[in-house]
Amino acid sequence: MKLSELAQQTGATIEIGDANLDITSAAGLTEAKAGQVTFLSNPRYTPQVKETRAAAIYLAKDAPIERADLAVLRAQDPYLAYTRALRLFHPEPVVTPFIHPSAVIDPTAQVAPDAHIGAGAVIGAHCVIESQVTIHPNVTLYNHVRVGAQSVIHSGVALRAHAQVGQRVIIHNNVVVGSDGFGFAKAEDKSWLKIPQTGRVVIEDDVEIGAGTTIDCASVGETRIKRGVKIDNLVQIGHSCTIDEDALLCAQVGLAGSSHIGKRVILAGQVGIAGHLHVGDDVVLTAKSATSHDVPPGKVISGIPGFDNKDWLRSVAAFRRLGEMARTIRLLEKRLAELERTSNDKNKLRGHGEE
Amino acid sequence: MKLSELAQQTGATIEIGDANLDITSAAGLTEAKAGQVTFLSNPRYTPQVKETRAAAIYLAKDAPIERADLAVLRAQDPYLAYTRALRLFHPEPVVTPFIHPSAVIDPTAQVAPDAHIGAGAVIGAHCVIESQVTIHPNVTLYNHVRVGAQSVIHSGVALRAHAQVGQRVIIHNNVVVGSDGFGFAKAEDKSWLKIPQTGRVVIEDDVEIGAGTTIDCASVGETRIKRGVKIDNLVQIGHSCTIDEDALLCAQVGLAGSSHIGKRVILAGQVGIAGHLHVGDDVVLTAKSATSHDVPPGKVISGIPGFDNKDWLRSVAAFRRLGEMARTIRLLEKRLAELERTSNDKNKLRGHGEE
Amino acid sequence: MKLSELAQQTGATIEIGDANLDITSAAGLTEAKAGQVTFLSNPRYTPQVKETRAAAIYLAKDAPIERADLAVLRAQDPYLAYTRALRLFHPEPVVTPFIHPSAVIDPTAQVAPDAHIGAGAVIGAHCVIESQVTIHPNVTLYNHVRVGAQSVIHSGVALRAHAQVGQRVIIHNNVVVGSDGFGFAKAEDKSWLKIPQTGRVVIEDDVEIGAGTTIDCASVGETRIKRGVKIDNLVQIGHSCTIDEDALLCAQVGLAGSSHIGKRVILAGQVGIAGHLHVGDDVVLTAKSATSHDVPPGKVISGIPGFDNKDWLRSVAAFRRLGEMARTIRLLEKRLAELERTSNDKNKLRGHGEE
Repeated sequence: MKLSELAQQTGATIEIGDANLDITSAAGLTEAKAGQVTFLSNPRYTPQVKETRAAAIYLAKDAPIERADLAVLRAQDPYLAYTRALRLFHPEPVVTPFIHPSAVIDPTAQVAPDAHIGAGAVIGAHCVIESQVTIHPNVTLYNHVRVGAQSVIHSGVALRAHAQVGQRVIIHNNVVVGSDGFGFAKAEDKSWLKIPQTGRVVIEDDVEIGAGTTIDCASVGETRIKRGVKIDNLVQIGHSCTIDEDALLCAQVGLAGSSHIGKRVILAGQVGIAGHLHVGDDVVLTAKSATSHDVPPGKVISGIPGFDNKDWLRSVAAFRRLGEMARTIRLLEKRLAELERTSNDKNKLRGHGEE
Repeated sequence: MKLSELAQQTGATIEIGDANLDITSAAGLTEAKAGQVTFLSNPRYTPQVKETRAAAIYLAKDAPIERADLAVLRAQDPYLAYTRALRLFHPEPVVTPFIHPSAVIDPTAQVAPDAHIGAGAVIGAHCVIESQVTIHPNVTLYNHVRVGAQSVIHSGVALRAHAQVGQRVIIHNNVVVGSDGFGFAKAEDKSWLKIPQTGRVVIEDDVEIGAGTTIDCASVGETRIKRGVKIDNLVQIGHSCTIDEDALLCAQVGLAGSSHIGKRVILAGQVGIAGHLHVGDDVVLTAKSATSHDVPPGKVISGIPGFDNKDWLRSVAAFRRLGEMARTIRLLEKRLAELERTSNDKNKLRGHGEE
Repeated sequence: MKLSELAQQTGATIEIGDANLDITSAAGLTEAKAGQVTFLSNPRYTPQVKETRAAAIYLAKDAPIERADLAVLRAQDPYLAYTRALRLFHPEPVVTPFIHPSAVIDPTAQVAPDAHIGAGAVIGAHCVIESQVTIHPNVTLYNHVRVGAQSVIHSGVALRAHAQVGQRVIIHNNVVVGSDGFGFAKAEDKSWLKIPQTGRVVIEDDVEIGAGTTIDCASVGETRIKRGVKIDNLVQIGHSCTIDEDALLCAQVGLAGSSHIGKRVILAGQVGIAGHLHVGDDVVLTAKSATSHDVPPGKVISGIPGFDNKDWLRSVAAFRRLGEMARTIRLLEKRLAELERTSNDKNKLRGHGEE
């Protein structure tokens, strides 16, 4: 790809370099080879710019550059421009229309003629598979499932009855969508009576769901994963939750039922969210923290239970010395008691002297 | 369903309302529509009773009611009665006897004539599938597995050799039952030598297991999940554990090997239990807590490591101000040192004066 | 097996007992029956030696023995010798060469004639399945996957494109190897733009991976699990991580991307490791702890965030009384203020008196 074309398609402008320079692919500063484009985003890595063998580099508007042999592409956000370059050099594979003879497709299902259905996939009654969808081998779609155009469903995935999947969604291997929510009433003999879970899961467009993640159907109504949400591996989403647009859920996060996660919220690894909560837009919960209360928009929360991240940082710093702190308090008590005794004695002495 | 029939089948009595009133289904207070039955359990929602469009309501024995247009069903536990109503209106689907031609069933396996075996399911040698069992597509049963009557095994589940599943058990998608326990001995060269895992998993009647959960076989003997236990998604149960009757394990709970979890124990989300422990009956561990010690019956435990929940609540309240607390201690030390100096000076002064 | 043969094959020497004694199998001290060999490793169980019905016992070099009716095998490490005995009595099953007719094998794949491929397994283009490999039912291998000799892949596993699996590897059910790493760049409209994940996963010889575990491919290059690593169930390994030889990762551990875990490191259950870290050789992180910083070799770390285990033990002991500690500090403040007031009054008094 010509440098000029690359610049144009990644939202950058050429500051230095021949517009006809051939760029073959993209790589990090230290990995890049001749002919590749690289990027500098974090100023910490500025020294590596001198060493890189790349042919071109994305730089922020104001980043200095001291090499004349390196084509310079100025971008608002070099990392974003670089990602766009990576995507140009590694486009999504074209979907080959195909239905493997071992796939089992219910006669009532509608499969677009340009969809791809792998070996051993099972498509239930009344399913709808839209254009250019890829269903990998050994996937199971229960009845009444819809998969939107250009979505990719990896092997071992289960989409339970009535699950709705939008367009350009990627669901990685062994994800479960629409299993029963965890709801029971306690009977007179203290055994648990199952509450029917009759709702469904709706996954909107441009969502990605990591391997092994489980998303329960609603008891009534919907569990909804909104447009652009990205979910990592082994995440648990309880029944009737709503994850709002562009939220990011890292690996092993767990949500109990009926919680609402706001737009662009980031839940770092192994975070836990209790049930029936409202986590406001743009909230961040740091790794391994948890909340059992609503969180107002924009807050950064840490700890179990979670509170303001800055306070938490002070608390955990103090926690490291908590054994010592306890000892200090015991000593203070002792010294104080000694002082009090002395002071008391003097008072008595003086009182006596004054009598 | 007639109101009288509903009352009778859900253990309630009609206080107000026509016994012949038609009830079509069940829904929550705010969602309920004409013809539906609803319930009030938590007094906090009493104001919503005035607004509900439901035709009938389950109320506790002593709950007041100010509407004459609403049929009133008195019940010991309105939530339980409502759950029973939901179950009446959403009965389990009838199992259609069926074996998909793509299912692979070993000739030595015994499959009840009224069982349902989905596409791509694989049933190993000497397996026994009892009456009205549903095996969904792409399930794998290794050899010598037994599945009891009316149980449902969802797609992608693996039941490893010799696993025993009771009656009316529900196993959600991609659960693994009977994988090898995690046991190794350290060899002379510090590499790990695998300890053979030769036991099995026994799952008793009326157990439900959430999607993606893994239950390891015992190294010797059994891992046993007893009658009525409910397990949520992505739970890990190590080798040789016993989970006693009616225990509830929420999502992402993890148990190391050889622990015993008592009857009716509740392990909230992301709880961890170390190996070789005994957790007594009716214990509750709150979310994200952990224990590496035995827990006596009836205790509520929180924290890592866990201790009494009430003490923990006080500790975490204090923890939020731990940074400030550390500062206060430093100030106290300073002030105390100052006082000690002053007191010392006076003593010296007085001592001098008295000489 | 003759006692002499057992001793020889498990690295032990006969101290007491007939070399021709028949040993039929191996079991723990309390479970062992006539004809079996048992072991004593932890001196705590010494009293059980008197009661055991075993025919022979592995003992450490210096462990006392008071029974004449028990054959005694002296071993450097009785647990290791016992494990070796268990392995002799429970050898790996011999692999029967077999390809199930329902398996779907791409014509470009190379499958060793003595491999075993179960029903419904799908082997992609250009895969290589080496000698004596067992692929259980419903496994999916994407294209260009290699599985080394004598490895076992359990049902439901997904090996994504270009995954490399070494020899004698065991991968338990529903493991996912090579799913996309979790990498996104934030676009101008605050939506997330997927970064292509073009790397692969390499699993070296003698690795074991527990059920439901997920291992992401590298964004560029490799995610590598080195020789002898043992991974438990439901573990998450992010893109571009390296797990060095003989490390042990217990259940539900989570690793963000690009971290290096040293040789023989032990990560206990539910541990979390942030991204781009270096955890030194022989480090131990105790259960539920986490680190967001590098850890030097040999350290034992606990807490969130983790610090030295000994300090942590003191801190958590103090934490249990933190509510009380906060109360003590308030009292100290009060008493100190009182003392300061008194001292001040006296100073004033004395000052006054001295005037």
